[in-house]
Amino acid sequence: MNTLEKAKAARKASFKLASVANDVKTQVILRVAELMKEKQSFILSENGKDLEKAKSENISDVMYKRLVLSESKIDGMIASLLEVAQLPDPVGHVSVRRELDDDLILEKVSVPIGVIGIIFESRPDALVQISSLCLKSGNAAILKGGREAQHSNRALFGIFVDAMAQTDPLFENSLQLVESREDIGELLAMDEYVDLMIPRGSNDLVKYIQSNTRIPVLGHADGICHVFIDKDADPEIAVSVSVDSKCQYPAVCNAMETLLIHRDVAKSILPALAAKMKSNGVELRGDDATCAIIEATVATEEDWKTEYNDLILSVRVVDSLEAAIDHINTYGSHHTDAIVSRDESACRIFLGTVDSSSALVNCSTRFADGFRYGLGAEVGISTNKIHARGPVGLEGLLIYKYRLVGKGNIVADYASGKRRFTHKDVL
Amino acid sequence: MNTLEKAKAARKASFKLASVANDVKTQVILRVAELMKEKQSFILSENGKDLEKAKSENISDVMYKRLVLSESKIDGMIASLLEVAQLPDPVGHVSVRRELDDDLILEKVSVPIGVIGIIFESRPDALVQISSLCLKSGNAAILKGGREAQHSNRALFGIFVDAMAQTDPLFENSLQLVESREDIGELLAMDEYVDLMIPRGSNDLVKYIQSNTRIPVLGHADGICHVFIDKDADPEIAVSVSVDSKCQYPAVCNAMETLLIHRDVAKSILPALAAKMKSNGVELRGDDATCAIIEATVATEEDWKTEYNDLILSVRVVDSLEAAIDHINTYGSHHTDAIVSRDESACRIFLGTVDSSSALVNCSTRFADGFRYGLGAEVGISTNKIHARGPVGLEGLLIYKYRLVGKGNIVADYASGKRRFTHKDVL
Repeated sequence: MNTLEKAKAARKASFKLASVANDVKTQVILRVAELMKEKQSFILSENGKDLEKAKSENISDVMYKRLVLSESKIDGMIASLLEVAQLPDPVGHVSVRRELDDDLILEKVSVPIGVIGIIFESRPDALVQISSLCLKSGNAAILKGGREAQHSNRALFGIFVDAMAQTDPLFENSLQLVESREDIGELLAMDEYVDLMIPRGSNDLVKYIQSNTRIPVLGHADGICHVFIDKDADPEIAVSVSVDSKCQYPAVCNAMETLLIHRDVAKSILPALAAKMKSNGVELRGDDATCAIIEATVATEEDWKTEYNDLILSVRVVDSLEAAIDHINTYGSHHTDAIVSRDESACRIFLGTVDSSSALVNCSTRFADGFRYGLGAEVGISTNKIHARGPVGLEGLLIYKYRLVGKGNIVADYASGKRRFTHKDVL
Repeated sequence: MNTLEKAKAARKASFKLASVANDVKTQVILRVAELMKEKQSFILSENGKDLEKAKSENISDVMYKRLVLSESKIDGMIASLLEVAQLPDPVGHVSVRRELDDDLILEKVSVPIGVIGIIFESRPDALVQISSLCLKSGNAAILKGGREAQHSNRALFGIFVDAMAQTDPLFENSLQLVESREDIGELLAMDEYVDLMIPRGSNDLVKYIQSNTRIPVLGHADGICHVFIDKDADPEIAVSVSVDSKCQYPAVCNAMETLLIHRDVAKSILPALAAKMKSNGVELRGDDATCAIIEATVATEEDWKTEYNDLILSVRVVDSLEAAIDHINTYGSHHTDAIVSRDESACRIFLGTVDSSSALVNCSTRFADGFRYGLGAEVGISTNKIHARGPVGLEGLLIYKYRLVGKGNIVADYASGKRRFTHKDVL
């Protein structure tokens, strides 16, 4: 099949998938886990082909590490499959049940979105995770993996296809793999067949996709996160939360990029904070007020807009809570931002006014992820303002539909006054 | 201000609006209602200017009717303002409260989306309705009305501006009016400042907007709704539900456009149904099997894809439930589709497999709207697959944010095993 035919087939499959029983979905995911164990050596040898090619092409160390599969990585994937399999069925949840009239019952019920397009780079384990989440939520998916992981992706995809075929014929065509670079462009143009795009990869990939499709995109390009140290901050908490936010894992989207500090406490807190940052290997860039207090290179306007993803921190002294919030809402990426303060009123204003998917008080920005939030499974992190925001669990792959069951009811009877709506919630 | 400045001002205003107390929002909407009454004659005289111009330009009767304001229309607007004012506050609703640890509390709380762009045609009352819904939900809005209603829109918009200024300075810049045709293009390009577009108008307007912006669009272009008469249908219900779906108000999106009927009952039901349709002035277009039973012109492939919005009905005989569902999922607009059947299993399959925002059993498609569903207020009808689907109430103008409040918690403690997540839901 070409890409268009695959998309049409996935769309058609999605209609049936929407009402698959949970035990069948569980069964197919468990079967994938079994086959992963059985075919472990095949997976590793196929991965070896990708690694060999990668070496010959001198890809970067980071990319190479992402590409490598190992027995322990496969065990990790199997463990995550078992976890996804046992999640409660997210489909069929009735959130509203309302009698419009005695014999006319409305239900609002969770259903899969339909067809999800996934574009991911290097990491072949991403294919396993997202495919299992799509199956669990009853969505069809079109997967576009990186060329560099072609053999690994084919091996893993083949396991899903086998598991589906062995479990139930209705899974036919539910997952589709597309491979060539040109397929991306085709996929992005298929808004008739693809309901949601989820890019998994670099900022550049996400931005490219966001700018080149009419299909809704779930994801985030930048993670420019802030910690604001208020004038009433506990100095020890200010330092430890800042250091954790910057240093605990600097390469990820929920790490802090810019520290804001209230002018009243800049002199008392910044020196200890800077010393701790420097001992963690952090390079500091500050505005003039900061550079007057601690040693730092001068920050430019560009620094406030930059996600370093590295041991670099920009620091700015602000005159007030309002100025801090203004900076965050202007330069931030609406991802995750924290205040350190003992002033409850300041914390309340910060929580209410900062336009971030996660607004935090007296804790590290690094907490903002699906596992730590206890979501059960993480589909991704979103800085969208509609549908799903922040760390997104399985609910990001769901929408609802209304079901209305009557006994021959017609609107003319209600328009004429012969009958009246009761609008009684019975759930 | 030019359009860009207005958008920036609205964005800035939106941050403050997000945490306005409900009584202040109620107060401003009630003040709008008072001013509407006080300034009734001014509104009518401004509307008169638009009507005069419209007459001189020979606009269509339909457009003219939409443009006309009257005392009773103003009373209607006032009544709807009072209703919106008294709705419960949709903002600040906590849907998840979870202890990540004893001293680290996560909340998922409803918040306004931010800045809503509204593009509407002719009907000046749309400005009043949508502005009040945006205020109630704490959203800023940029309103683009039709040129033909310029004086009416300015008068109504002026009332909102006055009411906001008289109530609380924080409403400054919350609502913006833009007027020229060029402003539409500018507005559609402002994905940095506008979070959601809501078009209110013709199919062509909606399609144009959907095709020309990266901003998410809430709405529907087509409403191609079906009634499927199954082989076990009650013949009387089949006829009355079909007639109501087609004739009760044919010009709207939830009216039926295509009737599907099971081959086994086509001969027994179609003649009575056709007679009833014809006595209601409905023109019938049928496939070959239909034309062999009743008098109808021959339907073309194009008919299955057409929203007539008029007293025209296409009719197709199908061989099975599956064929009916397949037709609906292929040619429909995923809006509202009904089955008439006494077979519970068929109804269950239909409800589960038909990919429509409203799936109905034994009742008229005309029920699918916000008032009849008891939503309290209707923002619009959406055929989107993410965020909001079907008749959309105030919840379509909301998203959520996560709030996490700790006491100095850092991720390093949990990564090292010094502390453990409890993940205990406390709501």
